[in-house]
Amino acid sequence: MQINRYPTLAARVAKELRKQLRSEYISGGQLPSEPEIAAQLGVSRGTVRQALTILEREGIIFRRQGAGTFVNKYVLRIQARIESAYEFSDLIRIAGFEASIRQLDVENIRLPKAIAEMLEIDTDSRALSASKLFLADGQPAIYCIDIVPCNLIRESYELSELLQPIFTFLKNRCGQSIHMNLAEIIPEVADASLAEILDMQPGEPLLRLDEVGHNDSGDPVLFSRIYFKDQFIRFTVLRKKIASEELF
Amino acid sequence: MQINRYPTLAARVAKELRKQLRSEYISGGQLPSEPEIAAQLGVSRGTVRQALTILEREGIIFRRQGAGTFVNKYVLRIQARIESAYEFSDLIRIAGFEASIRQLDVENIRLPKAIAEMLEIDTDSRALSASKLFLADGQPAIYCIDIVPCNLIRESYELSELLQPIFTFLKNRCGQSIHMNLAEIIPEVADASLAEILDMQPGEPLLRLDEVGHNDSGDPVLFSRIYFKDQFIRFTVLRKKIASEELF
Repeated sequence: MQINRYPTLAARVAKELRKQLRSEYISGGQLPSEPEIAAQLGVSRGTVRQALTILEREGIIFRRQGAGTFVNKYVLRIQARIESAYEFSDLIRIAGFEASIRQLDVENIRLPKAIAEMLEIDTDSRALSASKLFLADGQPAIYCIDIVPCNLIRESYELSELLQPIFTFLKNRCGQSIHMNLAEIIPEVADASLAEILDMQPGEPLLRLDEVGHNDSGDPVLFSRIYFKDQFIRFTVLRKKIASEELF
Repeated sequence: MQINRYPTLAARVAKELRKQLRSEYISGGQLPSEPEIAAQLGVSRGTVRQALTILEREGIIFRRQGAGTFVNKYVLRIQARIESAYEFSDLIRIAGFEASIRQLDVENIRLPKAIAEMLEIDTDSRALSASKLFLADGQPAIYCIDIVPCNLIRESYELSELLQPIFTFLKNRCGQSIHMNLAEIIPEVADASLAEILDMQPGEPLLRLDEVGHNDSGDPVLFSRIYFKDQFIRFTVLRKKIASEELF
């Protein structure tokens, strides 16, 4: 059996269709038939069907029996989906602001127990901790602390490389690509220290993500704690009903 | 062209596989081949492949070229995925608490402008507003306000029906089934009123979801504002990297 490596052809076709929909179907509408799409893109109907299944799971299209395939304009218009790990500069740009970055701190730390457990390595292991501040029109919008276990770092690096997205650093200096992130969604109130960094009042709300990045083999290799100011970045999520009988 | 109504056969097979994985693969491992799964479930290989594509998009499995299909135990173990709109009582039970419900208020209101816009109906239209409190081991955990436009309500109903999940009410009394929800994720600080309802201190953080439910045709038919106390309910989200070139 041939097993495809991600991205499969279907995933690439889905990506191409997603682009087309954003430019041509922003007010919704009905898609051409599968054979027409297949002919237009020069791929098989089976591949088109798989690609449409991907877009259906994302909520971008929906199928109606006997009627056809339709675009969901509400989903298509979402700017920041929490399921998508955009680069933070992109996220700020999508939200309509100029993006800039300020490097705050790079430290060699001993991993606290909670984070060591999430990364499945020994407590007190050494790790690189790099914190960055992302500005929207010059104002603090996202504060991010990335933690990479030192034993993964294979090559020497310049501090300035840590201004790049951490994914780039992990790829170039650790030989690791992040396949997916699992993030806990935590409402938080700014304490004095966060308020100073993010230029806000103590006691104001923040959205915090505690995120573990997993590599191609599914192993945890990165911990990130990220704070978002709601006035600049607000995420949307598409939720589908799960019935009780699927759970118990 | 035959267009399938959701759930397709592939979606049903994915659901069956999801259940099997939760009971047999909670520590991870490699899946049987596609033909073996197809034989076991009595469906075609094409259907199995589509089902596996669904599970792959959910992050529950991943494929490695030439090696096979593997289970991602981290994703399989997530209790509360924000992408899944569980019934709140289920969510509380999954988190390990006894669930109970208290009906707070049912009112006939005029829709405020912001909500009317989201529901795409006239401001000042009448709507039913029903608020409920969900308790975890007897303590307030989730506070939910559901708003249904009056013009959707076709049949008379008992107040007690509003203690059921709002999806049930929408189906029975409005002839509407919710196909998906789009929710904004908002960190919030409890004011005096929320603090009293949720039995917490003013100034403590809360996770708020402002959610619009869409019916089978994609039209918005329900607005819900939901507050979650982090100590009882914490959501996880699976995030996949989106490269800049997919955005601009």
